[in-house]
Amino acid sequence: MESTTKNIGLRGVVIASTKISDVDGAKSQLVYRGYLIQDLAMETTFPEVAYLLIYGKMPNRDELTNFSRKLEKNRHLPPNMICAMQTRPVGTPPMDILQACVALLAHHDDTLPENSLDIAKDRALCLIAKLPTVIAAWTRIREKNAPIDPMPGLSMAENFFYMLTGERPDPRLSTIFDRALVLHAEHAFNASTFAAREVASTRAHMYAATSAAIGSLSGELHGGANTRVMEMLKAIGNRENIRPFVEGKLERGELVMGLGHAVYKNGDPRVEILRPMSREVGEMSGDTHWYEMTRELETVGKELFKEKKGIDIFPNVDFYSASLYHTMGLPHDLFTPIFAMSRVAGWCAHIIEEQFADESHKPVLYRPESEYIGHYCGPEGCTLVPMDKR
Amino acid sequence: MESTTKNIGLRGVVIASTKISDVDGAKSQLVYRGYLIQDLAMETTFPEVAYLLIYGKMPNRDELTNFSRKLEKNRHLPPNMICAMQTRPVGTPPMDILQACVALLAHHDDTLPENSLDIAKDRALCLIAKLPTVIAAWTRIREKNAPIDPMPGLSMAENFFYMLTGERPDPRLSTIFDRALVLHAEHAFNASTFAAREVASTRAHMYAATSAAIGSLSGELHGGANTRVMEMLKAIGNRENIRPFVEGKLERGELVMGLGHAVYKNGDPRVEILRPMSREVGEMSGDTHWYEMTRELETVGKELFKEKKGIDIFPNVDFYSASLYHTMGLPHDLFTPIFAMSRVAGWCAHIIEEQFADESHKPVLYRPESEYIGHYCGPEGCTLVPMDKR
Repeated sequence: MESTTKNIGLRGVVIASTKISDVDGAKSQLVYRGYLIQDLAMETTFPEVAYLLIYGKMPNRDELTNFSRKLEKNRHLPPNMICAMQTRPVGTPPMDILQACVALLAHHDDTLPENSLDIAKDRALCLIAKLPTVIAAWTRIREKNAPIDPMPGLSMAENFFYMLTGERPDPRLSTIFDRALVLHAEHAFNASTFAAREVASTRAHMYAATSAAIGSLSGELHGGANTRVMEMLKAIGNRENIRPFVEGKLERGELVMGLGHAVYKNGDPRVEILRPMSREVGEMSGDTHWYEMTRELETVGKELFKEKKGIDIFPNVDFYSASLYHTMGLPHDLFTPIFAMSRVAGWCAHIIEEQFADESHKPVLYRPESEYIGHYCGPEGCTLVPMDKR
Repeated sequence: MESTTKNIGLRGVVIASTKISDVDGAKSQLVYRGYLIQDLAMETTFPEVAYLLIYGKMPNRDELTNFSRKLEKNRHLPPNMICAMQTRPVGTPPMDILQACVALLAHHDDTLPENSLDIAKDRALCLIAKLPTVIAAWTRIREKNAPIDPMPGLSMAENFFYMLTGERPDPRLSTIFDRALVLHAEHAFNASTFAAREVASTRAHMYAATSAAIGSLSGELHGGANTRVMEMLKAIGNRENIRPFVEGKLERGELVMGLGHAVYKNGDPRVEILRPMSREVGEMSGDTHWYEMTRELETVGKELFKEKKGIDIFPNVDFYSASLYHTMGLPHDLFTPIFAMSRVAGWCAHIIEEQFADESHKPVLYRPESEYIGHYCGPEGCTLVPMDKR
């Protein structure tokens, strides 16, 4: 039987209202809680943006100091978390570790049976604080190194590099990394955020919902594009190969990873911020090769897609974050976990919005309908054939 | 700003077609792959039904023998899984353990980077085989007992009780338990199945999607109703208290846990099978108290809801499974994990349907839209106020 279902993949179906972010493809505009992403990236830090997403307003100095102090206090993992992580096979992909670890973190939350708006905000803070530690600890454990405890007094970005390497990074590098976290923190109802809200709608706790979101982000159609951009750049190798590479893609009717976006048809506002960041990190490290490769691929891609297909094509957020993170020395399979470590702020804001009513929203369980297109052997259903006659 | 969103909770919105099951509320009919639940419950076993859900057809004797043998071979947990479980705080709710453990199981699957229809079916079998072992192992670990290895030659139901207690159960009891698993194996697009499909739609692997489904089932609006039915029965205590209890509920405009269903307005077909099972286990154990309490609550509930509210009310699947599992001696916080250990067959069937195309279905990422109802300070978004002026 053929399906006649209309809402496949829920494309174009508005399923909820939100006060958290607005993605306006036509205007190339991304707004968190009313603020333009450009302003947030250039004038704030990731903890400020996390506060904005969770609390719904920009923090003043005291609020930010208090929030940052609580983040710092919550960075540590319980010793039994490290023990559990040390049982894991060393080849396990970090996203699979992260999904499991967020579920494991629930086991250490003594307030778990309770849920109030204040507890939920504290729980969000705890997850935002602990995800970098989980990612850094796993990166050390799989290399047979002891995990490094978070260091008090370091910013979130500085501390992440410190926990990975034992060394404090160049302050310019941590500023740029922090900005990348701001850019990835929130993006409305993508698949992982929707997974978080769907699970939260059953009144499951924040860890259960966030773990589900990480599972969703681990899928190759969702997260992971920045890793694949880097693989593509490596495969192309050098600038002379770019034009034949794009021509080959066009001839085979294939897409170029990192070029084009489902929503931003006139360009992704985050790219204008990421591009100079990628260049700057290249210049700082003395290796601008991957920045230049990316820049050239953007130029050639735009030119050839316009010439051969008549379409304007623009890079998306993954395009420049690949060369950015690679040039920072980060392992490629950490690119998606780093996405998660930023996006967790958005997921938690959505989980809170899903579970707590306000004047415009009453929590409700998601329960869609499906259309049965299987068979029946008769009006009363198929008749079971006895085992010996099958 | 007020929301004008229409599809809140996706109620009544058909979002996909499926060949796995049909829930027909008006007819009080539940069908798995074309077969009536009544026929499946009385004439087949859980492994047969799991095969039916995953493979889309009833197995013949050879196919079932082969499938059952593979289930038996896959029951063991890797030693490192047990080690990881032993790091967990003993008070952790079993559903939180189960969500984490399914994510952890991914780490032990050497075929993980691959996904084909055959691999997916084998992975489903692996999850169906291992969930009972995880639940039994945790139940022993939290009581400071060593986990008991699965015993070859026992059926899935027998082995579950054996792993919990070290003793083989009465064969009549394992037959009834197996039938309860058949009844819970599948129920179309409820919240947990939808979570599984949503995560699977990103091409995330089966463990990631199943772990998300368990997170969704852990929410009190979804799984857990059978546990709460038992708590209610305990609180009522004895038969004389039933009538005043229901009257009190009606006066306060509250519902009686386990009575009423969102879809089956004329009765849940699974109840007619569960009711005699609850009685039979009561008679076997010499304790029919909780069966009789449940029976009386059904009768009084029906009578008073009709009399006071003019509505026909019927028990749902959780109503009799509470007294059934309790009288079997199962801990109350295992009721929802047991639900998961059966429903995993349905989840895996849905994950496979979501990821693999057939003539009626092309896989697509779920990406719904949201409506932004937050503020803007101007057409260009809010202007950031400098920190010192906030």
